Amino acid sequence: MTSLAINYQDIIIASQRIKGHAVVTPLLESALLNHRLGGRIVFKAENLQRTGSFKFRGAFNKLSKLAHLGQLNGVVAYSSGNHAQGVAAAAAHFGVSATIIMPADAPQIKITNTKALGAKVILYDRNKEDRHAIGSKLAQKHNLTLIPPYDDADIIAGQGTLGLEAFHQLQALGLAVNQVIGPIGGGGLMSGTSIALRNHLPKLDIWGAEPTGYDDAGRSLVAGQRLANALGPLSICDAIVTPMVGELTFPIMQRYLAGAKAVEDQHVLEAMGICLQELKVVVEPGGCVGLAAILAGSLDVKDKTTLVVLSGGNADSTMLSHALL
Amino acid sequence: MTSLAINYQDIIIASQRIKGHAVVTPLLESALLNHRLGGRIVFKAENLQRTGSFKFRGAFNKLSKLAHLGQLNGVVAYSSGNHAQGVAAAAAHFGVSATIIMPADAPQIKITNTKALGAKVILYDRNKEDRHAIGSKLAQKHNLTLIPPYDDADIIAGQGTLGLEAFHQLQALGLAVNQVIGPIGGGGLMSGTSIALRNHLPKLDIWGAEPTGYDDAGRSLVAGQRLANALGPLSICDAIVTPMVGELTFPIMQRYLAGAKAVEDQHVLEAMGICLQELKVVVEPGGCVGLAAILAGSLDVKDKTTLVVLSGGNADSTMLSHALL
Repeated sequence: MTSLAINYQDIIIASQRIKGHAVVTPLLESALLNHRLGGRIVFKAENLQRTGSFKFRGAFNKLSKLAHLGQLNGVVAYSSGNHAQGVAAAAAHFGVSATIIMPADAPQIKITNTKALGAKVILYDRNKEDRHAIGSKLAQKHNLTLIPPYDDADIIAGQGTLGLEAFHQLQALGLAVNQVIGPIGGGGLMSGTSIALRNHLPKLDIWGAEPTGYDDAGRSLVAGQRLANALGPLSICDAIVTPMVGELTFPIMQRYLAGAKAVEDQHVLEAMGICLQELKVVVEPGGCVGLAAILAGSLDVKDKTTLVVLSGGNADSTMLSHALL
Repeated sequence: MTSLAINYQDIIIASQRIKGHAVVTPLLESALLNHRLGGRIVFKAENLQRTGSFKFRGAFNKLSKLAHLGQLNGVVAYSSGNHAQGVAAAAAHFGVSATIIMPADAPQIKITNTKALGAKVILYDRNKEDRHAIGSKLAQKHNLTLIPPYDDADIIAGQGTLGLEAFHQLQALGLAVNQVIGPIGGGGLMSGTSIALRNHLPKLDIWGAEPTGYDDAGRSLVAGQRLANALGPLSICDAIVTPMVGELTFPIMQRYLAGAKAVEDQHVLEAMGICLQELKVVVEPGGCVGLAAILAGSLDVKDKTTLVVLSGGNADSTMLSHALL
């Protein structure tokens, strides 16, 4: 078997680093939704994480390790907004500067919050410029460390703490779970989480979810090689619109994932509405694609217990109003 | 000193009864809000409790005790909607019938959800009829047990588990809290919570919050005796519009509370908006009066750490849309 970028022990170490700094996000359920779907759906409400998404886990783990090694100066990151806020908050914690390269069309709330966390924000054109190239150039010029959004062992291990935490919470409730589904952008969340969950639950089925048109993970898993998305109009799922899954995350997903479901905007909006009305939480479009896949009938949940990862909550008020209609 | 309806030990027993049945709701924070207010605000997000409010704690504790004593048949309750859902869910758990008397002008989501949880709903006119009389009559006629919304030792002890849980969470984070503020309707939540928190934190300042026009708790605490509210138009804070604080809850609040702050609708809506945008949670109007009091400048939070109880999240989508404007 191919050697993977991280192992279970890396996630244990990451979970020790983030302890007391990251929120232990709750598992939530809706009796009404369970009744309607004929199965039990348990949500990991990671939209309640510090900075509003799971990205804080990976960023804090990475910066904590660099600080421990005495290698932490300023950092630079490129991000559609959630990784940006995670890196900015972690940098503020460790007292170093953060420069974030964000697409000019990112939701305003993400740009505003990243600045408010003390970061310097540089905007770029998602369709014309290469964010990795901009980041690398800045890193070299100002002697900054580039913090990649997903294709990095420490980032993947940090995101994997979500899976470890969810396992312990399920265990405390005595809940046997059959399958899990969660969002895939670059794949950091679902690759790290898969390693943690499968270590404890070897028979668990693991699924990804992504927007139609940006369904590179699903197509790549079927093809057995990484395939790119065509750069196109911004999906409402801005958080998980990435050109391609990662070089490090893909082999992990190949080993553990059953596949990835592509979802339409209409089901994403319906999922957001259910989160607001029944779970009492704000989830951004890219954060609730797992539930959207279930609502679309793409994942069979009948008579099963399904863990759904809600990965982020940084939605603009106009998007929320739209989901309430 | 007057003997109180419950003591700390009753809350310990209640917490053992609800364990694994109630959600351990998280403590949430917003770095941006802390920065804006110049103090640290830690939110107990009880809107994420089962059935969307703290009421599940008291109802489950009460029904669990009755079941253990072999005294649980069907139950009847009167409620503006949150106690209704808590009682309905607990009754469903123990396999007994629930009949709920609700005001005809309660938010539709609360009526719908109460029915969906399997309860029989009877609507009454808030301004013309006496809900306690209707409930007592039904209880006698059908041999049902009346589950009061707040003036009952087991209900108060159940709500007090919120305070106990918050204390342990604060302790795990190493957070020293100076003051707490939370909503008062009948006073079950803040009386139970006060006993739990003051047992561990003898110097903690405890405040209630309630809507202007329904500020009976504040006026009663000043007067040294229970004073009623005039029955009037429905406040947007429907969950905490009660005629008067309880006979059992008032002496507890007299002993532990510093007072209660009255808040205006505009600050309640602003608080709801902050909860949606910065904490990523849906809080109903009556659930966020504590934050509203802080936004209004009624409670000094500068350079302090303040625990704010968000007590419920059962808001209609029209109310949420209003808060997003």
